[in-house]
Amino acid sequence: MSLTVVGSIAFDAVTTPYGERSRMLGGSAVHFSLAASFFDAVRVVGPVGDDFGAPEYAVLHDRGIDTSDIELVAGGKTFFWSGRYHEDLNRRDTLRTDLNVFEHFEPKLSEDSRAADLLFLANIQPDLQRQVAEQCPGARFVAMDSMNLWIEIAHDSLVETIQAVDCVILNDAELRQLTGKPNLVQAAREVRSWGPTAVVAKQGEYGAALLTGEGFFALPAFPLEHVQDPTGAGDSFAGGFMGSLAAHDGEIDHDALRVAMAYGTTLASFNVEEFGTERMQRLTADEIAARLDDLQRITRFDAAPVALRD
Amino acid sequence: MSLTVVGSIAFDAVTTPYGERSRMLGGSAVHFSLAASFFDAVRVVGPVGDDFGAPEYAVLHDRGIDTSDIELVAGGKTFFWSGRYHEDLNRRDTLRTDLNVFEHFEPKLSEDSRAADLLFLANIQPDLQRQVAEQCPGARFVAMDSMNLWIEIAHDSLVETIQAVDCVILNDAELRQLTGKPNLVQAAREVRSWGPTAVVAKQGEYGAALLTGEGFFALPAFPLEHVQDPTGAGDSFAGGFMGSLAAHDGEIDHDALRVAMAYGTTLASFNVEEFGTERMQRLTADEIAARLDDLQRITRFDAAPVALRD
Repeated sequence: MSLTVVGSIAFDAVTTPYGERSRMLGGSAVHFSLAASFFDAVRVVGPVGDDFGAPEYAVLHDRGIDTSDIELVAGGKTFFWSGRYHEDLNRRDTLRTDLNVFEHFEPKLSEDSRAADLLFLANIQPDLQRQVAEQCPGARFVAMDSMNLWIEIAHDSLVETIQAVDCVILNDAELRQLTGKPNLVQAAREVRSWGPTAVVAKQGEYGAALLTGEGFFALPAFPLEHVQDPTGAGDSFAGGFMGSLAAHDGEIDHDALRVAMAYGTTLASFNVEEFGTERMQRLTADEIAARLDDLQRITRFDAAPVALRD
Repeated sequence: MSLTVVGSIAFDAVTTPYGERSRMLGGSAVHFSLAASFFDAVRVVGPVGDDFGAPEYAVLHDRGIDTSDIELVAGGKTFFWSGRYHEDLNRRDTLRTDLNVFEHFEPKLSEDSRAADLLFLANIQPDLQRQVAEQCPGARFVAMDSMNLWIEIAHDSLVETIQAVDCVILNDAELRQLTGKPNLVQAAREVRSWGPTAVVAKQGEYGAALLTGEGFFALPAFPLEHVQDPTGAGDSFAGGFMGSLAAHDGEIDHDALRVAMAYGTTLASFNVEEFGTERMQRLTADEIAARLDDLQRITRFDAAPVALRD
């Protein structure tokens, strides 16, 4: 199968308690495609400026990612994001967001990108997400991310986009905000009533939960003693999740989605070990397989029968 | 084996978005012992006042709980707690705490209670917890809870108590506060360096994590569409956890603790379905066994090998 992702391609400046980088490759489509590249052919769609050069393309090409739908806006500058994480890495402040070439981005997909079996709409304006989805009528599984900003200023458009996809992947706080339902099971049921068959609630350091018509599934985040930079964790999760579905031979049912949750969790855990894309650039398939085994081991228990007293 | 718990016995007044109760049986030792009673003989130690009558004793006796170490303080009133939960049930405000007979409580354990194989020190002043532990030198596994108040006003005493137990069961925010380490793996390692072999981080609606020298284990909370009253969830967790260890035939190792985590999660999930002890009073062994199976199902994935691309 093949996989297309539309989203941001960026330079990030990040400070965490464990270091800082003033300019590194980032963006949702980048983090997503690096993670997904371990599973299947990935095409990345998004705009860049003149400052996006050979070293940045090389990071993507080294992982076999197809960049022919990266749109160069001559005279423009690449999207820039700057943030600072607190001692508690769950908290961060955005210091600066320069949309730059992203401000007038209109996604144009090539024939190859339109022919994708799976499509991921990373966090961009929901009208744009819908335009992309409409260009890929043959995709058999479409998933999307979003953020609190769009829930606040483009709620109706966001709901319209959600109606057109198979799977919504959101932070659990955003699912609650979107639906007004503080109970996760109720919030996911509401979103599924709009159209999607699957809802994934990202819960940061606590992991992620999957809710479909066939039931519930949840995994903790992989425990790490040293997290250097959480930026891109959610997109790496989505990349592992969608990548494993693209590589999956058969129906995308609840069982396939459970395995996808495990790969998503695994890829996200590598991404946060170092700054930006640093860890992903030298990640190997063997490391992924070993950590997936570890993840299974640390979440599995034998329901050893205990004689219960009524 | 046998199991002794020392903690509060209370009347609670609770308001949640789903109803209210102006006076119901509560307290950490009560929630704990009801959950643990499904596994083994339980003895409960704690003070009550003249207002604690036959209906309250009946709730405990109906589950076979030994109340002979409940100390009646003549002329006194039972501990009273009142709280109000927000629409988001993870947030609550304490409206009133009347220590009453708890103010001058000095735990005195009978021979039978001292002979317990397992001992749980529910959240009370850490000096008192240590006095209790010293009365049970033969206990083969001692676990404890605590709270932010003691971390703030009795830190050194709390650490001294922790040094004397096998297992610490705390909210994850409290583990971070106690150690000053925002990373859970680091925080648990620090606590284990003081003496305990096991640390359990309670994560509310996200579940719980276990950290021992043998590794990490985590489970999500059981997903519930309707939670009426979260009061006592942590103590019910501890009751299921310790109960299953008491009923466990063999060494209390990482594998036994994993199963204990599953029973803790299961018992906590029933407790929150209704107000106070209402659900636990009519809970059955069959319901527990069925939910444990469900919990296993919703956390298990098959590591279906996907061909990864290096």
